[in-house]
Amino acid sequence: MNNFIYDIPVKVYFGEDQLQHLGEELSKFGKHVLLTYGGGSIKKIGLYDKVIAEIKKAGLEVVELSGIEPNPRIDSVRKGAQMCKDHKIDVLLAVGGGSTIDATKFMAAGACVDFDPWDFLNEKQASVEKALPIVTILTLAATGSEMDCGGVISNPETNDKIGRLDSKMLPKVSFLDPSNTFSVSPYQTACGSSDILSHIIEVYFNMNQDLYMLDCVMEGLMKTVIKYAPVAMREPDNYEARANLMWTSSWAINSFIDGGKRQAWSCHPMEHEVSAFYDITHGLGLAILTPRWMEYCLNEQMVSKYVQFGVNVFGINPNQEAMIIAKQAIAALSDFLFKTLGLKSSFTALGIDRTHFETMAEKSVKLGALKYAFVPLDKEDVLRIFEMCL
Amino acid sequence: MNNFIYDIPVKVYFGEDQLQHLGEELSKFGKHVLLTYGGGSIKKIGLYDKVIAEIKKAGLEVVELSGIEPNPRIDSVRKGAQMCKDHKIDVLLAVGGGSTIDATKFMAAGACVDFDPWDFLNEKQASVEKALPIVTILTLAATGSEMDCGGVISNPETNDKIGRLDSKMLPKVSFLDPSNTFSVSPYQTACGSSDILSHIIEVYFNMNQDLYMLDCVMEGLMKTVIKYAPVAMREPDNYEARANLMWTSSWAINSFIDGGKRQAWSCHPMEHEVSAFYDITHGLGLAILTPRWMEYCLNEQMVSKYVQFGVNVFGINPNQEAMIIAKQAIAALSDFLFKTLGLKSSFTALGIDRTHFETMAEKSVKLGALKYAFVPLDKEDVLRIFEMCL
Repeated sequence: MNNFIYDIPVKVYFGEDQLQHLGEELSKFGKHVLLTYGGGSIKKIGLYDKVIAEIKKAGLEVVELSGIEPNPRIDSVRKGAQMCKDHKIDVLLAVGGGSTIDATKFMAAGACVDFDPWDFLNEKQASVEKALPIVTILTLAATGSEMDCGGVISNPETNDKIGRLDSKMLPKVSFLDPSNTFSVSPYQTACGSSDILSHIIEVYFNMNQDLYMLDCVMEGLMKTVIKYAPVAMREPDNYEARANLMWTSSWAINSFIDGGKRQAWSCHPMEHEVSAFYDITHGLGLAILTPRWMEYCLNEQMVSKYVQFGVNVFGINPNQEAMIIAKQAIAALSDFLFKTLGLKSSFTALGIDRTHFETMAEKSVKLGALKYAFVPLDKEDVLRIFEMCL
Repeated sequence: MNNFIYDIPVKVYFGEDQLQHLGEELSKFGKHVLLTYGGGSIKKIGLYDKVIAEIKKAGLEVVELSGIEPNPRIDSVRKGAQMCKDHKIDVLLAVGGGSTIDATKFMAAGACVDFDPWDFLNEKQASVEKALPIVTILTLAATGSEMDCGGVISNPETNDKIGRLDSKMLPKVSFLDPSNTFSVSPYQTACGSSDILSHIIEVYFNMNQDLYMLDCVMEGLMKTVIKYAPVAMREPDNYEARANLMWTSSWAINSFIDGGKRQAWSCHPMEHEVSAFYDITHGLGLAILTPRWMEYCLNEQMVSKYVQFGVNVFGINPNQEAMIIAKQAIAALSDFLFKTLGLKSSFTALGIDRTHFETMAEKSVKLGALKYAFVPLDKEDVLRIFEMCL
C-alpha cells in the first residue's frame, strides 16, 4: 500500500434552498465577483435570477462571462482571466457543469499570472503558484469538478484537449442542489453517469495492494450509478435519483477513493483525443471506449479484478470460471451503457472513422501516462482499442 | 432526504514515515506546543522519541501533559487548559487514541475561556467560541476522534460521561500511520473494532429516506471491519489490516456517512452511562448493548433495514422471510462480536448487576436524544435493554 495525503477542504452545501448561504460565502473572499456560465440553461431553470438576487442582497458587485462551451476552450479561459484582472475580481462563481467549472479554475489561476494560461496545459506545464478563490453551483452530475482540483481544456487550433490538476484550483465552496439537475436531458444524464462510472473504473481496475475499504466504497458508488441513472432518465425530477447521482459524482473523483493508488488512468487519455478531434460528449466517448479497453486488457494475471467487479457490482454468479465471469462483467457493463442508458455503442455510429486514428493514438500516449496504466498501453495498443470501437 | 453541509477540512497524512511533515504542520500555528498523551505506551513503541525529534528539528518548544486516562476525565482537561494559558501554547499535539484526542479537544477550547471547561459539557452547554489548533497522531483505530469534532469526557465525581460536538474542535491535521497500531493488543483491537462498527450502525439503522449511496458506503465500511478486525487480532503487525481498520475508523464517524440524517444515536447514550458507572472500555459496552438493542427494536415496520443489513453486510440468503433474515442478522452480529472478536457477551460477565440500572436508565434518557432515535426509547425501554444484557 502506498502512503497518501488526504486534503479536500471543500465545503459543500447539499440540498435545496441552500443558496441563502451564497452571499455569506462569497463575501468571505471580497466584493467583486466574476460569474461564469455556459449557454444560458441556468436562465431557463431560473437559477440565474436566484444567484443574482443573492449576490445583490449581499451587496456584492458582479461581472459576467457567459457562453463557456462544452469541452471548454482556452479562449474562454483567456477571456475570463483577463476579466479578473480588468475588474479586480476577488472570487469566481462558476454556475454550471464540469465545463464551466473546469474553465473557471484556469481563469482563477490565469488571473494571477502574466503569461498565457495555455502554458498551464501545454508542454511548458507552468506552475500554478496561486489562484483566485472559486465557488461553484453545480447543474450537472458528471465530472466531479465541483470537489476536485482538476480541469480539462481544449485548444481547437492544435486539436489538443489537456487536463491538469493543482490543489490551488480546488473550489472553496460548492452548492449541490439536486433539483438544479432536473432539467438535464436523458441523454446528458446518461453521458454524465457514464463519466462518473468511468472515474471510478479508472481507479478500481488496479492490481496494487491497496485499501479493501476503498474497493468496497467504489463498488457502492458504481452500484449507485447503475441504480439511479435509469431512474433519473425516466423521471427527470426524481430528487432521490438526482441526489444520489450528484453526490456520487463528487466522490468518484475527489481523490478519496484513490487511497494512495499511483496508477495512471487509461480511458480518459484516449477519450480526450477522440473528443479533441470530434467534439463529442466526454461521457459518450468513455462509454464506447471502456468496455473495449476492458476486453483488450483482460488476461489471466488481471482476471481477479474483473471477477470482483462482476460479482460485487453486477451481482454475477461467482460460482463460475474466472474468465467466464470476467466476460459476463464486460457484457453487463456494455448492456448498462448501451441498452439501459441507450448510448451509441460505436465510433461508426458517431461518424468517426479511421482518418485520425494514427494521430489520436500518438497523442494519447504522448504524455506517457498510459505507460503506467492498469495494463501498460503503447500506440499500437491504443490503435487496436480504437479499431475495436468502430 | 434532508439537506446537509459537508465540511471536513482535516488534512490527513496516511501511511508510514509521514512524521517528517510534523514540524512543518505544527509550525504553521506557532512555536509553542502542548504535547498530550496517555499512559506512556507511545514511549514503548518509540513514537515519543520520533515526535520529540521532529519537534526539536523544527525549532519548536514543547511542554508535556501525560497520563490522560481511558475514558478521559475532566480533571485532565482542566489541567491541560491551564497549561495552555500558562505556557502561551499555540498548538496542541495529541498523540494517542480517542481518549487523548477527545481530552485535548476540550483543553484547546478550555484554553480560550475563563470558566471551567466542564461547563462545555454539563447542562450549561457553554458555547465553544474558539479553540486552539489541534494536530493528532493516532495510535488506536476506534473512536474516529482524529477526523471528527466531538469528544466524550467523564466526571467521576458526578458519574457523568458526556459527549459534545463543535466544529471549532476539529483537528487541523492528523497523522495516521497504521504501524503505530501494531502494538494494540488483540483485546483493544476488538474493542476498537466494535466501536467503529457501532458508529456505523448508529447511522445505518435509520428509516429516513436518504442517500442509497451512503448506505452502500456504510455497508462497505462494516464489511471492512468484519474482514480485518480478526486479521489484526491474529497478526498484530499486518499492515493491510491495520490500515483498513484505521482509515475506516475515521470515515465511520467524521459525518460523511450521515448525509443529512437527523436521527439521534441509541447505543452510545446507553453505553456512556454503563462506562460512567463501571469504567469499562467503551467498545466492549457497545458490543454487549448493540445486538440486544437491535433485538428490542425489531418489528414489522423496521424489519426491512435489518434485512438490508443482513444480506448486504453478512451475506445472509435473501430468499427467506424478512423476520427470519433479521434474526439471522442479529445472530451474525453477535457471533462476530462475541465469538470472532471474543468479547465478553454480558454485563454479568463484567460484574455489572442491576444496582445502578435505574439511575443509568434515567441518565440515558435525560438529554432527550433517545426520544429521536431509530426506535424512540424511554427509561422503561432502556431498563428492558439493560436487563437483556445481564
